[in-house]
Amino acid sequence: LLLSSYEDRSASGCSQVQLGFRYESREQRFTIYIMQLSNCSALCLPADQNMYVRLAVLPSVRATRCLFRTRGLHPQDVVVINEVFGLQMSHSALRQKTLRVDICNTSKSGHEECLAGSQISLADVSCSEERCTKWYNLLSRLHMSEISNK
Amino acid sequence: LLLSSYEDRSASGCSQVQLGFRYESREQRFTIYIMQLSNCSALCLPADQNMYVRLAVLPSVRATRCLFRTRGLHPQDVVVINEVFGLQMSHSALRQKTLRVDICNTSKSGHEECLAGSQISLADVSCSEERCTKWYNLLSRLHMSEISNK
Repeated sequence: LLLSSYEDRSASGCSQVQLGFRYESREQRFTIYIMQLSNCSALCLPADQNMYVRLAVLPSVRATRCLFRTRGLHPQDVVVINEVFGLQMSHSALRQKTLRVDICNTSKSGHEECLAGSQISLADVSCSEERCTKWYNLLSRLHMSEISNK
Repeated sequence: LLLSSYEDRSASGCSQVQLGFRYESREQRFTIYIMQLSNCSALCLPADQNMYVRLAVLPSVRATRCLFRTRGLHPQDVVVINEVFGLQMSHSALRQKTLRVDICNTSKSGHEECLAGSQISLADVSCSEERCTKWYNLLSRLHMSEISNK
């Protein structure tokens, strides 16, 4: 029974997050737009719980704030977020970074739990000053553990 | 001392992997080219140990082989790999997947250990039949744990 519901979930598709990126050369400022989530039912969050998006630019440098969390979000099929996170960094340093995006909730014991995430190499972030927008698949934490069993 | 060597490592830049992708619509075949690694010293692998690249297409479907490991590789600054991994899948199914790429080694106790990895959303894999090649930053496992301490 568990396996069949697992297959159903895979068949119904993964959750996705829509992000926008912009790098302004003059101010050496990188802006991340957390735009929306889709197909949130695939996250399997209990109906009465809120979630939020956590961003981290890694590896972090101690002097730079690298972690950002959105407001609490009520799970619906499509969740519009429209929050913005900015950080200051040279373009060459930024291109060595990886952006980790996780959908989290707070457990009853008060711990932060990750439901699903995406990881984005910033090696090819362009300097074009135009905002580039894209949808990224979110990989469930349950599926990450699949590798270690093989 | 540990912190300063950590900062040095961050400053010297991250390791990268060069991958190529191709989707052939007629055969519904997705091919991943594992081309090369650069800046491998940032992986901090002991000099006498070999490493290899592990690929996983996730979430996996039981009927499809989703896991692939390259031959053992001797750590050098640039490591040419040129191995190919293929799998058969409809384009719509493929676009729901995430590719996990990890640089692994085998510990003395015989366990598989991950040194660093990248995760690539396949949401925008094109059907163009042309091979698309790109470098991706590898995030060290050490840096992944930074998030949970904040």
